[in-house]
Amino acid sequence: MLARLAALAEIGQAAGTNRPGLGGGEQRAHDLVAGWMREAGLRVEVDAAGNLRGRVPGIDPDVADVWTGSHLDTPPDGGAFDGALGVVAGLEAASAIAATGGLRRGITVVAFRLEEGPRFGRGVFGSRALVGLLEPDEADLRDADGTTLGEAFAALGLGALPSGPLPGRRPAAFVEAHIEQGPLLAAAGAPLGVVTSIAGMAGLELEFAGVRGHAGTVPMPLRSDALAAAAAFVTALHAAAGGIPGGVATVGRISVAPGATNTIPERAVLFADVRAPDAAGLDALVEAVPVRAADAARSARCRALVCERWRYPPQPMHPAVMDAVRRGIRQAGHEPVELASGAGHDAGILAADGIPTAMLFARSDAGGVSHAPQEHTGADAVEACLTALEITLRELAA
Amino acid sequence: MLARLAALAEIGQAAGTNRPGLGGGEQRAHDLVAGWMREAGLRVEVDAAGNLRGRVPGIDPDVADVWTGSHLDTPPDGGAFDGALGVVAGLEAASAIAATGGLRRGITVVAFRLEEGPRFGRGVFGSRALVGLLEPDEADLRDADGTTLGEAFAALGLGALPSGPLPGRRPAAFVEAHIEQGPLLAAAGAPLGVVTSIAGMAGLELEFAGVRGHAGTVPMPLRSDALAAAAAFVTALHAAAGGIPGGVATVGRISVAPGATNTIPERAVLFADVRAPDAAGLDALVEAVPVRAADAARSARCRALVCERWRYPPQPMHPAVMDAVRRGIRQAGHEPVELASGAGHDAGILAADGIPTAMLFARSDAGGVSHAPQEHTGADAVEACLTALEITLRELAA
Repeated sequence: MLARLAALAEIGQAAGTNRPGLGGGEQRAHDLVAGWMREAGLRVEVDAAGNLRGRVPGIDPDVADVWTGSHLDTPPDGGAFDGALGVVAGLEAASAIAATGGLRRGITVVAFRLEEGPRFGRGVFGSRALVGLLEPDEADLRDADGTTLGEAFAALGLGALPSGPLPGRRPAAFVEAHIEQGPLLAAAGAPLGVVTSIAGMAGLELEFAGVRGHAGTVPMPLRSDALAAAAAFVTALHAAAGGIPGGVATVGRISVAPGATNTIPERAVLFADVRAPDAAGLDALVEAVPVRAADAARSARCRALVCERWRYPPQPMHPAVMDAVRRGIRQAGHEPVELASGAGHDAGILAADGIPTAMLFARSDAGGVSHAPQEHTGADAVEACLTALEITLRELAA
Repeated sequence: MLARLAALAEIGQAAGTNRPGLGGGEQRAHDLVAGWMREAGLRVEVDAAGNLRGRVPGIDPDVADVWTGSHLDTPPDGGAFDGALGVVAGLEAASAIAATGGLRRGITVVAFRLEEGPRFGRGVFGSRALVGLLEPDEADLRDADGTTLGEAFAALGLGALPSGPLPGRRPAAFVEAHIEQGPLLAAAGAPLGVVTSIAGMAGLELEFAGVRGHAGTVPMPLRSDALAAAAAFVTALHAAAGGIPGGVATVGRISVAPGATNTIPERAVLFADVRAPDAAGLDALVEAVPVRAADAARSARCRALVCERWRYPPQPMHPAVMDAVRRGIRQAGHEPVELASGAGHDAGILAADGIPTAMLFARSDAGGVSHAPQEHTGADAVEACLTALEITLRELAA
């Protein structure tokens, strides 16, 4: 399993692992995992959303499968564990189950497409496609190179985007194994945790419009400097998040135009990612964005434009599936730590659509750093995760 | 003259005029103007810095020429007048002088290379080369594409950068005609002004280093968000400039890494352009930069790195040459408005090196906007500028 994680990490290596969703790196990772699935005797198919599925049939052909898996794309300069761990652990568990056989339900291991948001400003594509939640503008989203999501999808030979839920039986349950991406399990000295809920989150794009001018000839009080507005907004947004329990806000992307050192910026564009563990906190934080943006714009004599790109409410996990995960962790010899996920996951999409869903978290080492090359999870936690996942899947499929 | 300004503006047209220094657009503009110089009977040469010179000989071969001119490069999406006006006006004036003849001193019309700073973070290249003020690292400066200044220079067939002052006689005097790039002449209802001094200015590059992390999993109080530091700095720098009489500060370029919407930025790089009309103000503003950067970094648990890329002290113009410009303006039928230049110019480099130098400003229309496609100077001011320049040059060369 460690060797496989390393082999996947090789795909798209630069400063870190670069496998943007619906790109060549993600495709090579899908091809690699599909080969491993076939070697393990799984029945492999690619669904209409490009998701890779490997199936171990159950005894009863009339009942739905238990699903497990995660995603194989990464953010820019990401690490070797985010997403990949859940797919590879699912594959190893399914492999073991295929070898013994005898479960009532089949097991489907899935690698969802384009889970990460950075490339097109919106993620969890494959899971949303599965349950029919692609947006009307989905195909028109553009990456930084100007390629649309629809073009990237078609370039992989996947044809047009699917509309409506994908055909076939819905999962009986979904268990996603994933690294924690935070410091809590390490602090608790525990390799594994059970996720109680996934934080609510929203992505908003902002544009501040000012007036371009020469850096030397326009007095400060007469300027409409778009970056002055953007800077005031960033500071105010961080303060707003700090005032909401468990709230976080990140501006991970910003650009100014025309981008010349001796020209007052006439335009600043940025993306705000805001999250909170409960619905009231998320709503308060999302509502703060246009208010703070308008204040910042006014203070710099600019105009602000705010566009909400996506919003996912907080998503509690399913009690019975959580219980199965807890038992899996205990039977693997560990005490489950209960924790909320600040990161979004494909599991949140399936849970929101009513599929009984839970998540198994494996400890993040290296201070909990994720979306970075130094992202790491020790071999002990990887092994514990695999053991607990297999036990959980066996119980759910029995 | 208007037709020629329009023809030059055609070179490098996109959203505005794009002729980065030492690039193909600037070269095509040099070639076009060289042709016009030859048509007008000027003797054309390209000096070791790539500056274009067109000469009308004087009667006395033993005395230095009076120089006039400006530059033909533009910032990104710039306008049709900044730089080009001074070159074209100089050419027209020299043309008229060539037709009548009989002046003691020759007239040299010069188009200096790479006056604008954005491409390599440092400008006034051609004028600095003329007086031997290129920096030891000059050839190694890089543009956004990774091309070094030395490579761009060599690619134009210009060989290696010159070292030391260029050979040949120094100018007896230099008069640069230029658009104001501000609103003062328009407010005064005057087409022309005489520049009393050029503001002091400095360019500083800043880097804020934080810790990358997942946008959902790191609590606000534990973050080291490089953009949080950069935003606080931008706000503080603008405030510092506002506290210095005539002081201005511009952050025209900013970027964050890794630049993913769901990743806390670990690095923010920005460029600060600060200016003040007097030495005390410039020094105070430059000294404020590392102080404000350290404060901003501390508040966001980041580190700050500040590198001063260039600094030019305020430069008073030469009294006798200013007087000649004043007389030229009056004989052209206008009252000279006295004003300081907030923008830097090749004239400032020559003046600092002891060459008797003055500047003739032509009114900027469109609210004084410059470094933008809407940059404009009405035909009446262009005509007045040419008339005043020719009279000034005739007096200085007599």
